[in-house]
Amino acid sequence: MINCDLIIKGKYLLPMDDALRVINDGTVVISGSNIIAVGKQVDLAGKYKAKEVINAGNGIIMPGLINTHTHVAMTYFRGLADDLPLKEWLEEHIWPAEAKYMDENFVARSSTLACLEMLKSGTTALNNMSFFEEVIADVVIKSGIRAVLSEGMLKFPTPSCQTANETINKTIDLLKKFKDNCLIDVFFGPHSVYACEKKFLLKVKNLSDKRNIPIHIHVSETKKEVEDCQQEHGLTPVAYLDKLGLLGKNTIAAHSIWLGEDDIMIYKDRGVKVSHCPISNMKLASGVAPIAKMIKHGIIVGLGTDSAASNNTLDMFSEMRACALLHKVQNLDPTILPAREVVRMATVNGARVIGLDKNIGSLETGKKADIITINLDKPHLQPLYDPYSHLAHCVEAQDVSNVIINGRVVMKNRKVRTIDEEKVLSEAGLFKNSLNNHGFK
Amino acid sequence: MINCDLIIKGKYLLPMDDALRVINDGTVVISGSNIIAVGKQVDLAGKYKAKEVINAGNGIIMPGLINTHTHVAMTYFRGLADDLPLKEWLEEHIWPAEAKYMDENFVARSSTLACLEMLKSGTTALNNMSFFEEVIADVVIKSGIRAVLSEGMLKFPTPSCQTANETINKTIDLLKKFKDNCLIDVFFGPHSVYACEKKFLLKVKNLSDKRNIPIHIHVSETKKEVEDCQQEHGLTPVAYLDKLGLLGKNTIAAHSIWLGEDDIMIYKDRGVKVSHCPISNMKLASGVAPIAKMIKHGIIVGLGTDSAASNNTLDMFSEMRACALLHKVQNLDPTILPAREVVRMATVNGARVIGLDKNIGSLETGKKADIITINLDKPHLQPLYDPYSHLAHCVEAQDVSNVIINGRVVMKNRKVRTIDEEKVLSEAGLFKNSLNNHGFK
Repeated sequence: MINCDLIIKGKYLLPMDDALRVINDGTVVISGSNIIAVGKQVDLAGKYKAKEVINAGNGIIMPGLINTHTHVAMTYFRGLADDLPLKEWLEEHIWPAEAKYMDENFVARSSTLACLEMLKSGTTALNNMSFFEEVIADVVIKSGIRAVLSEGMLKFPTPSCQTANETINKTIDLLKKFKDNCLIDVFFGPHSVYACEKKFLLKVKNLSDKRNIPIHIHVSETKKEVEDCQQEHGLTPVAYLDKLGLLGKNTIAAHSIWLGEDDIMIYKDRGVKVSHCPISNMKLASGVAPIAKMIKHGIIVGLGTDSAASNNTLDMFSEMRACALLHKVQNLDPTILPAREVVRMATVNGARVIGLDKNIGSLETGKKADIITINLDKPHLQPLYDPYSHLAHCVEAQDVSNVIINGRVVMKNRKVRTIDEEKVLSEAGLFKNSLNNHGFK
Repeated sequence: MINCDLIIKGKYLLPMDDALRVINDGTVVISGSNIIAVGKQVDLAGKYKAKEVINAGNGIIMPGLINTHTHVAMTYFRGLADDLPLKEWLEEHIWPAEAKYMDENFVARSSTLACLEMLKSGTTALNNMSFFEEVIADVVIKSGIRAVLSEGMLKFPTPSCQTANETINKTIDLLKKFKDNCLIDVFFGPHSVYACEKKFLLKVKNLSDKRNIPIHIHVSETKKEVEDCQQEHGLTPVAYLDKLGLLGKNTIAAHSIWLGEDDIMIYKDRGVKVSHCPISNMKLASGVAPIAKMIKHGIIVGLGTDSAASNNTLDMFSEMRACALLHKVQNLDPTILPAREVVRMATVNGARVIGLDKNIGSLETGKKADIITINLDKPHLQPLYDPYSHLAHCVEAQDVSNVIINGRVVMKNRKVRTIDEEKVLSEAGLFKNSLNNHGFK
């Protein structure tokens, strides 16, 4: 008998390996933060002695979901203003609220709510762009979630930095500080073509090359962004970024909606990774990204929720479902983005997008133990013919029972062990009251 | 003090009256099956003495959701086959499974699972088209949900009737049997233009006129349906049905996707009601119905889930969210179908679609008490600035706490009182096993 820390067993084990197997009556064995065995219960039973056993019963065991584009600091603006044109939404609601409220205390509380919501909906890793990332790093460590953090870099003053150069210094500080942290990676976060100067983008590119650190950037989210870029630079945002050398295997291009054939070929040739945010894109009426075409060309695409201000949740199950549905109807082809592909986007391909696929995204020996279990004993989940179909079309956030991150049981039977849920909800209510009192609606 | 049966109180009361009010700290008072008072707690406190009080706490009190198009008997086929072209899905999977399995026992069990799922997701009334509707009536009465039942009428033999005329006889029997039932209405259910002969449609129209009984029919769900109708009759399905006299205030036209301007004007002029099923339409890649245009013309539109075989849930909250998102991106306009409009579609306009708006759809004195409460003490529902926004974009099926139908508390604190949930889930699992053993997949 080999000693280990944790054994998880359940009826359907989906390791999300290349073969997309379903292992019936499966087991994952964990020692420290690592997976040391994956297989059928009959093959592994009797070989390992664990300190703790989680039995998922008739449920699913699978990798935790990976949210490849979000802004956790904005969670307190969930539903603050809906059904508005982007310009009015941003300029009359979101920006004034950010200017007034976004300090370190706000970011800590808003991000804690985000981490709580993500844990309770089965997300085990997130790729974030916000302000005050050092505050968010603290929240991430406390909540036990895995995160990639990029300080938002803009050409105008942000709540956390007076100048764009300050955001570079902050990023370099964060890189040093979290070099050996097991939960946190730090990337560069130049916001977009329209919010960053050319000289600044080139500076970020050089630092990214020198340090081999990825770049997380918004690309071609709106039609107007593309038109403005063409007017200013004579190129699409994709072609412009490519000309500056910013597109490569280390680039995560969020949204990427208004792409022409040429843009898609640039992504393909450079190995750019894409974070697709279907719900935010639908809600803001930004457009439909040509995801089926990208995948056909071998471009790696993950899923992201964007912020709770434009979604209005941080739930990756809703995101999977929206993704599966949207592209079928958009292409009038029900065979597009089948369930298996959508689940890959939310797990192993998400890990590829954020460059962490050596460690997470699938359940394989030697990888980190980022694992969730799904309770299938519910009326909307029976009968079950194919667990992938249910994950893409039926499973809800609240069907997640257990969450393990880096080998640690962070949520057990829907009770999050790292965050005081009651306190977090009550603080959110207090903020809402204070905002109301300040004349925001 | 006036004696009453039930008092429901909570932080946000949304009566869904014409003013779309939000009553803070509201109360609904119920006597027997009827609402006898709606208002603020301060105004009503001390006036009524109730046998039972339901306290929704910080949550929402609102009318139960109304599913205006579904096929409950197919729930056992949830996720049986996905990601397939419609023809292959129907001909190689759904029809063979129906032919093999759809008997009275199957319909009873499959429909019970549907009612359980609907109750747990806040649906209090449904408009159904299936076979063996007499069996479903039994299930509906036992589960305590409100339902409109239409026996599916087709020109070829169905699992329950050998001829189309038999379906008429069955419908007339059902009309007699449930004439005075407080939960059940019976409508005519000619399946569609392509599945019914002209002579038969005319016969149904005459019966419908004579008895003032609505007609529930699928219209222009696929592009092919429209092309075939134009080839055969030289008219669109809408124009053809109008020529036969089948379109009027008593017509519920499900789907209605491929409608031209002329078709929309016919709907408007005749007062046709529409059941919009966005998730099924997306999943089967049928197309996007011109809902924003219809609403602009004053056409009454409700929401429906269609069956669990093409959705794959029966969850009206998902349906609201999909509806809100789909039409914004389809029209590239974020102001389209605002949250309030979507919640109206799922409640009071749903009642109008199925002709029951005198009794249900809003919480007003004199109406039947079909009421749900939503638990907002959850991370994905905080903070809350506008309850309508949360209902359209954040609330999940499992946030529904209590369900009252016709004055009866059918679900309390998520425990359904009328159905043995464990038994229903276990039966669904057994069916799946038997289907696997018969060589399906």
